[in-house]
Amino acid sequence: MREVAVIGVGMTKWGELWEKSLRTIFVETALLALDDAGVERIDSMYVGSMSSGLFVGQEHIASLLADYLGQAPVPSARVETACASGGLALRLGFMEVASGMSDVVLVSGVEKMTDVSGYEATYALGTAGDQEYEGYIGITFPGLYALIASAHMEKYGTTREQLAMVAVKNHRNGSKNPLAQFPFEITVDSVLNSVMVADPLRILDCSPITDGAAAAVLCPVEMAQKMNKLIIKIIGTGHATDTIALSSRKDITWIEATYQAAKQAYSMAQKKPEDIDILEVHDCFTIAEICVLEALGIVEKGKGGDAVEQGMTSLEGEIPVNTSGGLKAKGHPVGATGVAQVAEIVKQLRGEAGERQVKEARIGMTQNMGGSGGSSVVHIFEKE
Amino acid sequence: MREVAVIGVGMTKWGELWEKSLRTIFVETALLALDDAGVERIDSMYVGSMSSGLFVGQEHIASLLADYLGQAPVPSARVETACASGGLALRLGFMEVASGMSDVVLVSGVEKMTDVSGYEATYALGTAGDQEYEGYIGITFPGLYALIASAHMEKYGTTREQLAMVAVKNHRNGSKNPLAQFPFEITVDSVLNSVMVADPLRILDCSPITDGAAAAVLCPVEMAQKMNKLIIKIIGTGHATDTIALSSRKDITWIEATYQAAKQAYSMAQKKPEDIDILEVHDCFTIAEICVLEALGIVEKGKGGDAVEQGMTSLEGEIPVNTSGGLKAKGHPVGATGVAQVAEIVKQLRGEAGERQVKEARIGMTQNMGGSGGSSVVHIFEKE
Repeated sequence: MREVAVIGVGMTKWGELWEKSLRTIFVETALLALDDAGVERIDSMYVGSMSSGLFVGQEHIASLLADYLGQAPVPSARVETACASGGLALRLGFMEVASGMSDVVLVSGVEKMTDVSGYEATYALGTAGDQEYEGYIGITFPGLYALIASAHMEKYGTTREQLAMVAVKNHRNGSKNPLAQFPFEITVDSVLNSVMVADPLRILDCSPITDGAAAAVLCPVEMAQKMNKLIIKIIGTGHATDTIALSSRKDITWIEATYQAAKQAYSMAQKKPEDIDILEVHDCFTIAEICVLEALGIVEKGKGGDAVEQGMTSLEGEIPVNTSGGLKAKGHPVGATGVAQVAEIVKQLRGEAGERQVKEARIGMTQNMGGSGGSSVVHIFEKE
Repeated sequence: MREVAVIGVGMTKWGELWEKSLRTIFVETALLALDDAGVERIDSMYVGSMSSGLFVGQEHIASLLADYLGQAPVPSARVETACASGGLALRLGFMEVASGMSDVVLVSGVEKMTDVSGYEATYALGTAGDQEYEGYIGITFPGLYALIASAHMEKYGTTREQLAMVAVKNHRNGSKNPLAQFPFEITVDSVLNSVMVADPLRILDCSPITDGAAAAVLCPVEMAQKMNKLIIKIIGTGHATDTIALSSRKDITWIEATYQAAKQAYSMAQKKPEDIDILEVHDCFTIAEICVLEALGIVEKGKGGDAVEQGMTSLEGEIPVNTSGGLKAKGHPVGATGVAQVAEIVKQLRGEAGERQVKEARIGMTQNMGGSGGSSVVHIFEKE
């Protein structure tokens, strides 16, 4: 397999973009990535999107977006694994370049979530769970993660305050990211006093409903060298599944799909958790970031809450996590999130992250997750 | 890239399967393919599905189905490009094996379309078109293909009877396929007198609403040889896009995405149209088969109607097309169709097609299409 580089990334301001359609959001973002890469034509593209059918009544968006980007007749594939759709797009784009099938591949993610009511959005997001065994009893995603949070608090003594600290940290980072949906700071108190969604999770524990897209351009490392690009290599990829229903798991505090995906990525990259300098992880709810750090081997089982409390994962900490603001502050247009994580890691490794720049980061990791952990995609990047 | 073989295929009876859920249909079918391949474990899987969100309110089916097949934690990706989702699953599975990333890959397609009303199904299918420019004015898929049919009749003198003959031929083939949804013969008269759907297309010009799945197992040719398998190689793959809206095309009788995908596949396989012995194509409407044969270079532009009238594409003809019964008689569970085409070609090349067996077929081709030709996937297979 050939070595693969990320030579361009693009992201536009995320939020409630009522004046823009899915295709507009995508095209604006993709053009930024092509511009950043310095290429006009691509050989193939991937679009991660969780539910364009339920959110905007449009399937077949791979062709729609290739068409509107002016890139038809290139092959274009939409890929989906709920909220990890963006990570999956990156993985398949990587595979296409690595295999020698294509040279320049655009990977992207997009979701337009605010064209429907809150009720309809909650329903659409619920389709990431097991509709016959979970949706049927009326549980929604905040409910599923509330079960995980309660179990984690019970089993490991994780505190309500520690959960809040995840949101506070990510908003602090997000306040330095002008593209974030909510670029402002919050306090532990404001989290603890915010509206209850599903006990113990409050509204400020939850990532928001967001419109947005993100894109990246991949090519063989050899080609990137000829283009005199600052090279960020993808050195590891992993993708794994778990039971879709939480009720089928032995231990709901343990995210096996993330553990398995990370194992593959570490092994391919020949790296260990302690080699990682910077991390973007899937904090769809505050508890998720805690569980994910444990599954990635960044902290011991049960110690995710302590890590945030001790400042280990803050911008100035030992291993900064979610410098972009994470899903919590940056926003969570579900299919786009996995690609936005890549955009942040690339910006950081290139030293282009502005006010939130981490010093001397050379190796970065992204972790993207579908449903309550039914799927997970992990990538490791290295600055050459 | 490594050479890739199809070592197992599976299909179950298609139809209105009210007593079975999406997951049941999938698992039954996937187990047949694994059994046919003689393997129990896979390294990765792909699921083609157009709109499980709108049809059964379930996204994230890649994980759901890996879980229910007992294959988690393997990577599992759902891929979508409307009605060509199955073909896309095959292409990405091919890429994964060819790249060396995985050895044994399950590719599959599934759609459960009869859990919703006819109106809702028509809406869901309409999301394969451009919802802002086509859906908005109220046009449905029979309407789009009716425009193509009218233009083809006007431009090339294709007759109403020739359209009917496509359906008659495919039902004749389908009557020999016990897994077909409608395994019986029809006549030109019955087509011409069937209910009008969108002038000039009548109900017997249209493929039906179907529940069904199909699956295939891929591995490197070298591994298949060690397993002493009868080897059917994938020697060419092509995937292309076109404008999603019919109104943006220069000539609506010409399916550019199929032409471009075929060009890639012929070039990779080092084959020409005259080398193909047997074909499964995307006859979602009778006119589609006619246009596709032209775009594939099997017949000259404008001669698709004559080809069926002269018997060139019948079971005993020069180049049998849709020996399975095609989408028309076999049924069209949209995401599954592209993989079912592979199942038919493999059965034929192995000499296991029973009553509908074509003599001395060595090279087969599949052509799968999304929307009104906004995407197309083409593969070429060769018996070793």
